[in-house]
Amino acid sequence: MSIKAVVFDAYGTLYDIQSVASVTEQAFPGYGEIITQVWRIKQLEYTWLRSLMRRYVDFSVVTRESLAYTLRCLGLKHDEQAFARIMDKYLHLDLYPDALDALAAMKDLKLAILSNGSPDMLHALVKNSGLDRMLDATISIDSRKIFKPSPDAYTLIESTLGIPPHEVLFISSNPWDASGAKAFGLNVAWIERVTPQAMAQACAENDLVSPLTMFKAIRTQMDELGLEPDYRIHALAELPDLVSSRKS
Amino acid sequence: MSIKAVVFDAYGTLYDIQSVASVTEQAFPGYGEIITQVWRIKQLEYTWLRSLMRRYVDFSVVTRESLAYTLRCLGLKHDEQAFARIMDKYLHLDLYPDALDALAAMKDLKLAILSNGSPDMLHALVKNSGLDRMLDATISIDSRKIFKPSPDAYTLIESTLGIPPHEVLFISSNPWDASGAKAFGLNVAWIERVTPQAMAQACAENDLVSPLTMFKAIRTQMDELGLEPDYRIHALAELPDLVSSRKS
Repeated sequence: MSIKAVVFDAYGTLYDIQSVASVTEQAFPGYGEIITQVWRIKQLEYTWLRSLMRRYVDFSVVTRESLAYTLRCLGLKHDEQAFARIMDKYLHLDLYPDALDALAAMKDLKLAILSNGSPDMLHALVKNSGLDRMLDATISIDSRKIFKPSPDAYTLIESTLGIPPHEVLFISSNPWDASGAKAFGLNVAWIERVTPQAMAQACAENDLVSPLTMFKAIRTQMDELGLEPDYRIHALAELPDLVSSRKS
Repeated sequence: MSIKAVVFDAYGTLYDIQSVASVTEQAFPGYGEIITQVWRIKQLEYTWLRSLMRRYVDFSVVTRESLAYTLRCLGLKHDEQAFARIMDKYLHLDLYPDALDALAAMKDLKLAILSNGSPDMLHALVKNSGLDRMLDATISIDSRKIFKPSPDAYTLIESTLGIPPHEVLFISSNPWDASGAKAFGLNVAWIERVTPQAMAQACAENDLVSPLTMFKAIRTQMDELGLEPDYRIHALAELPDLVSSRKS
């Protein structure tokens, strides 16, 4: 069985959402890191809660509402301009440094994004980062009005690319997304960006009380959902070899 | 319009889930608090993720899997007995100190629990705490195989008690649950256990980096989902007066 398409999650997988911390730290010195971490956790919660409540709004609204929650909870007063500058960074996220080379090395395959992002957000993001020239499709879950990991979201790969799940390799660094894709029936490679060793080291360094350690403990390790990914890799750079071994 | 039934969330609302910290601290000195906090966040995430993935398992499994995740991430080696002792505390959670009096004062109304807990867990919990003698029903979402805040879960109130949503007052300290109940159409009182002032104070005390502050920032404040509860109270003790004002 061969792989005909490689489909990527966007936020946290191709794009480094922690790169927002440069902007949040500038706006709120000393709070840059904790803002991005609470924000991310609430952003994801809101996608799941709204999906379950059947109260879908697009990801730009969820992203705005979760940032508003975060700043309110941390007691950070702000003007509209500071808020807008932080939100704008979400349209100019840094690519992981190995993203472009990895995509270029797989250009004989169909390449796409499947993301919770709204069409407007994704359009700006791939254009600003130059990925628009390398991707065959940038798929937003918006047309289904439900977020990943609902199976409805993952059906968009086949309906857009015309390639069935067993010929797709789905790539995510988000454990819940890798699990959701696996539950749906895709081949899945999970990017383990924080190894168990790095996690253990953060705890051992008496760093246990830092927000970063707590964020890692919540967000970065493979979940206990009984849905193991097919492959564990540590960087996008490992993908071309993995895919070429699956083509033969 | 009058209130004929008062229906309570269990975990965090009638029962203090932070009371598990006494057992986790004993098993893992220095880690008691962070275990309960990461565990709770992952426990909730797993209910939402499994609901969205259509991979329901009951709450005892979710509770076990989220504890396993937490101990693994924090690098805490344990034997089966330590694990079992922690899990067992979930069947013997402390009631909030004002719970019994508040329920007794409203005994002329239908009183019930609607909880994500499995029937076995809830049965043990209400029996061990003596609430079984005060409640007309202890309703588990298990029969619907989907967790709150899915509207399917909240429909169990009417189908069990025979009382329509507009005559029910639903009580939760969990912001996402109060929002879900509101989205469904129940009257909702949210118990704000950590006030914005207490939240601000935690941040101001240079306590910003503690796991407890991060937990508060994630878990305790009213969410930005556009679904405000009808009432904000600060303790179960306020309920009898609130309900009697709504009966007249």
